[in-house]
Amino acid sequence: MAAPVALIQGASRGLGLEFCKHILKNKGPAAVIATCRNPDGAAELRGLVGQHPGKLTLLRLDVTQEEDVRGAAERVKESFGRLDLIVNSSAMLHPSGKGETSLRDVSAQGTISTLMTNTVGPLVMAKYFAPLLQKGGGGFGLQPAEKSKQHSGIIINITAKVGSIGDNGLGGWYSYRMSKAALNMATRNLSIELGRSRPKVVCVSLHPGTVNTDLSRPYHKNVPKDKLFSTKHSVNCLMSIIDALNIEKTGKAYSWDGTELPW
Amino acid sequence: MAAPVALIQGASRGLGLEFCKHILKNKGPAAVIATCRNPDGAAELRGLVGQHPGKLTLLRLDVTQEEDVRGAAERVKESFGRLDLIVNSSAMLHPSGKGETSLRDVSAQGTISTLMTNTVGPLVMAKYFAPLLQKGGGGFGLQPAEKSKQHSGIIINITAKVGSIGDNGLGGWYSYRMSKAALNMATRNLSIELGRSRPKVVCVSLHPGTVNTDLSRPYHKNVPKDKLFSTKHSVNCLMSIIDALNIEKTGKAYSWDGTELPW
Ligand SMILES: NC(=O)c1ccc[n+]([C@@H]2O[C@H](COP(=O)([O-])OP(=O)(O)OC[C@H]3O[C@@H](n4cnc5c(N)ncnc54)[C@H](OP(=O)(O)O)[C@@H]3O)[C@@H](O)[C@H]2O)c1
Ligand SMILES: NC(=O)c1ccc[n+]([C@@H]2O[C@H](COP(=O)([O-])OP(=O)(O)OC[C@H]3O[C@@H](n4cnc5c(N)ncnc54)[C@H](OP(=O)(O)O)[C@@H]3O)[C@@H](O)[C@H]2O)c1
Repeated sequence: MAAPVALIQGASRGLGLEFCKHILKNKGPAAVIATCRNPDGAAELRGLVGQHPGKLTLLRLDVTQEEDVRGAAERVKESFGRLDLIVNSSAMLHPSGKGETSLRDVSAQGTISTLMTNTVGPLVMAKYFAPLLQKGGGGFGLQPAEKSKQHSGIIINITAKVGSIGDNGLGGWYSYRMSKAALNMATRNLSIELGRSRPKVVCVSLHPGTVNTDLSRPYHKNVPKDKLFSTKHSVNCLMSIIDALNIEKTGKAYSWDGTELPW
Repeated sequence: MAAPVALIQGASRGLGLEFCKHILKNKGPAAVIATCRNPDGAAELRGLVGQHPGKLTLLRLDVTQEEDVRGAAERVKESFGRLDLIVNSSAMLHPSGKGETSLRDVSAQGTISTLMTNTVGPLVMAKYFAPLLQKGGGGFGLQPAEKSKQHSGIIINITAKVGSIGDNGLGGWYSYRMSKAALNMATRNLSIELGRSRPKVVCVSLHPGTVNTDLSRPYHKNVPKDKLFSTKHSVNCLMSIIDALNIEKTGKAYSWDGTELPW
């Protein structure tokens, strides 16, 4: 069987970078394609290329630019011809770096920017990369014995618990919450369209917990120490979920501990 | 008590226009402010002004333009100083007029336009009009006896059943579904922020059924006759729900028959 190929979108920092490290370290011969909007500025990611010669490919991709996504898919098609896993990790709380505390902080432009990166980006990724995932070898997840239920690829959309409408008891963070609720709808829709196809592509939303990254930095002081995960711990948990994914589990949102999140 | 004031956003056609007619006909002295992006082209709406002298005010408002929303709120503040009800009715399926059948039809620009009108617009409406709703006289809905539970105003976001993530079994219509899921999150968030304030503003999402309007026209041939509502029937049903709204019911999504929709 050919070595699995994983693409991590939003790999310059935080959880995306950690996904690259994890797969390079723990997934034997798997090849990793890491995309970010400014590879020249992503020093740690570039360092990984030297440490894993021939296994890590860097591609420039700003997820808000449809042409970038199309172009990157073209490149992956030429070099690999297929994909087994995509993780959409890039996101922002808001262009200001902080979620809106109240309506006063809301602006049309701020909400649109957040939706473009967090929601429209992952959907456009699916549009251009689904054909490659349909050519994948099913190298991630747990394949059932029954051939008709096997999957060729997996799409992971990194969501957030605060994107759960039913779970929302506190309010605030308008743009971010809305972007993740809409992303969860995209996940659901993708699971239906790509679950019908043969071969099948699995699509789920995953919540990483509250993780020590730049995104959550403004709020770290409010988080009890044992509730603030390292990226390493979070990605370990998320990869355990991915390792057990199959078509029966598609179209849902799961938290880092494997529990299902309400919509 | 001063006459109630209702603002219908997206009143040129379809359900928005019908809400204006309904309130003018059935709500005694209530004043109606009808907003649309091109009042000159809204012949039927302009006709209503003549039929209801002094009761109907027309304002130009493109809900994708934050400056329009701010300006309209300024005008309403000067002329009325308060509001009892807002209905956000404007929306599109997709700029093409048809929901996406599959990923192939998805484009970043199409999804962003849909989100701007259907989702960001109603949120920006809430930002600028919430202060006027907080000055409202509670002229719509059913006020409980207990003073601390009474509301001053109501925000209705017209959603769609296909915007329910949990109910989504068919897929397709990516942009529209995502826009309404995100709108439902906005409703939830607004209900929390404006439910905390004193006086309280109620906010719910309402699904009108499948209604005989331009929006649904491409799909009418697939709808059994008795399942395709007239705008009159749909607005009758929705106004019954609005007439019974109070703060206990805030933050939820209801269908035209009063049943609660899952997120
Ligand atoms: N951290 C948490 O507590 C937490 C909790 C729940 C969910 N999440 C989710 O976890 C995921 C990863 O977040 P994180 O915590 O790792 O955040 P992070 O450390 O702030 O990283 C965000 C990443 O997104 C990238 N990005 C932003 N805009 C982009 C664009 N237009 N095109 C391409 N990449 C773009 C950034 O790239 P640049 O380096 O170029 O800026 C960066 O790599 C996100 O989806 C987030 O919503 C995080
Ligand atoms: N009809 C159904 O079966 C159905 C089912 C479920 C939910 N809904 C929801 O019901 C609501 C009303 O839809 P409808 O069926 O009445 O549709 P419609 O007859 O097509 O009317 C759509 C309205 O939205 C307005 N609009 C579009 N873009 C706008 C913008 N940028 N600024 C201001 N107004 C804008 C249109 O104004 P112009 O005249 O200027 O174009 C028009 O008044 C929508 O939220 C829709 O999603 C409808």
